[in-house]
Amino acid sequence: MINVVLLGGGNVAFHLGKAFLKANNVNLVQVYNRSISAIKHLESKTKITDSINNLHDADVYVISVTDAAIKKIVKKINSKAVVVHTSGSVAMQVLAKQEHFGVFYPLQTFSKERNIEFENIPICIEANSKKDLKVLNTLAASISNNIHFISSEQRQQLHTAAVFVNNFTNHLYHLSNIICKKHDVDSSILLPLLEETAAKAIEIPAFDAQTGPARRGDTQIIEKHLENLTESNKEIYKLLSQSIANTYGKKL
Amino acid sequence: MINVVLLGGGNVAFHLGKAFLKANNVNLVQVYNRSISAIKHLESKTKITDSINNLHDADVYVISVTDAAIKKIVKKINSKAVVVHTSGSVAMQVLAKQEHFGVFYPLQTFSKERNIEFENIPICIEANSKKDLKVLNTLAASISNNIHFISSEQRQQLHTAAVFVNNFTNHLYHLSNIICKKHDVDSSILLPLLEETAAKAIEIPAFDAQTGPARRGDTQIIEKHLENLTESNKEIYKLLSQSIANTYGKKL
Repeated sequence: MINVVLLGGGNVAFHLGKAFLKANNVNLVQVYNRSISAIKHLESKTKITDSINNLHDADVYVISVTDAAIKKIVKKINSKAVVVHTSGSVAMQVLAKQEHFGVFYPLQTFSKERNIEFENIPICIEANSKKDLKVLNTLAASISNNIHFISSEQRQQLHTAAVFVNNFTNHLYHLSNIICKKHDVDSSILLPLLEETAAKAIEIPAFDAQTGPARRGDTQIIEKHLENLTESNKEIYKLLSQSIANTYGKKL
Repeated sequence: MINVVLLGGGNVAFHLGKAFLKANNVNLVQVYNRSISAIKHLESKTKITDSINNLHDADVYVISVTDAAIKKIVKKINSKAVVVHTSGSVAMQVLAKQEHFGVFYPLQTFSKERNIEFENIPICIEANSKKDLKVLNTLAASISNNIHFISSEQRQQLHTAAVFVNNFTNHLYHLSNIICKKHDVDSSILLPLLEETAAKAIEIPAFDAQTGPARRGDTQIIEKHLENLTESNKEIYKLLSQSIANTYGKKL
């Protein structure tokens, strides 16, 4: 049984807390958050506190707060337990004042409104010793079947790649919704295409799945598309089309 | 029963042909293609031909060829039947020499290797008369539950939006794969995020689903991400981040 204290009340902490409570070999002994209201829903399931000087003993402290707050929080932990953060972009060394430390980064987009099965979520772990890595591996395995040993440098790059796959992709969805709205078309008409685009990428490398005017070097269609776009969307359209064309050795 | 002659051997024609053969009230009387090899697989199921001067009678002629080839093909059809093309970006008026004409545009990405259920694919139809539109509506309803009346102008915009949702999104997937490869990380680690990003957009408007450093105006993380990107990816990262920030009134 691994005893865990979870620190944080944001989206990642919310889902991690639920997953730890569900796991057979994890005992979530306490959840801390600066404001108690964000963790009030856990009151019947574990100890909750808004006092950082009042942390219980545990085997692992999981700091799941904003990147900027990690440094402040970690100073308050005096323990020989393993102290980890859950951030995609903060180096492990930020925790180096601890005796045992590491990273426990779940690579997924979390919202409180959406239920999510932790089982398939990749957990990227890293630690300052083999022994601590083993502890984190056991903890990760208790909530996921998808564990990866990822260095701080790799994690930083992975976080950048995740911005492309999630943030930018979602923004393209948004821009397409706006184009539809502007021309009085119900944007839900695009959903089957959106779904199939993702489903295809899971089966076929994106390089092979690419289609469309930029892939074919079809400048006539590209010109037509550019006609009606806003200045900002024009820039995005041109830059991404050029990047596609370059990828396949086409001239635009 | 609607008698259909299908013209074309590409990805769209391939899947349309299969759907028409499966439909109860459609009789696929003939498939034409410039090169017979691309339609050889239909030989046991319908008449096939590579001779454009040898087309059978039908109620609807479905021209599913490249945009550039539509004009040439349509000249060869002398019929009082309804003649349609399946293109997202060619105006209906290209077919105006016919007595009865229209558009039959399935809004999806097609590859011969991927099986696809036509049932949910949006079919955008348009015709030069109400009577012809009714014929196209019946034909569309025989293969899909998702029919939309879309003008040529709207279809052009929809095609642009589809480039954002499919072509550009898929290219972002590709760029993220390259980032992973460069830093020795198995890019399949991104697939659960990719899946969830699409699944989320189906439930929540993309505007509300947006997260990440640009949405928060977190310039520190953005600077970190930019450090390791190639020049081309840096430009894409900056432009999309700026577009996100503008969408939410954040300064970068």
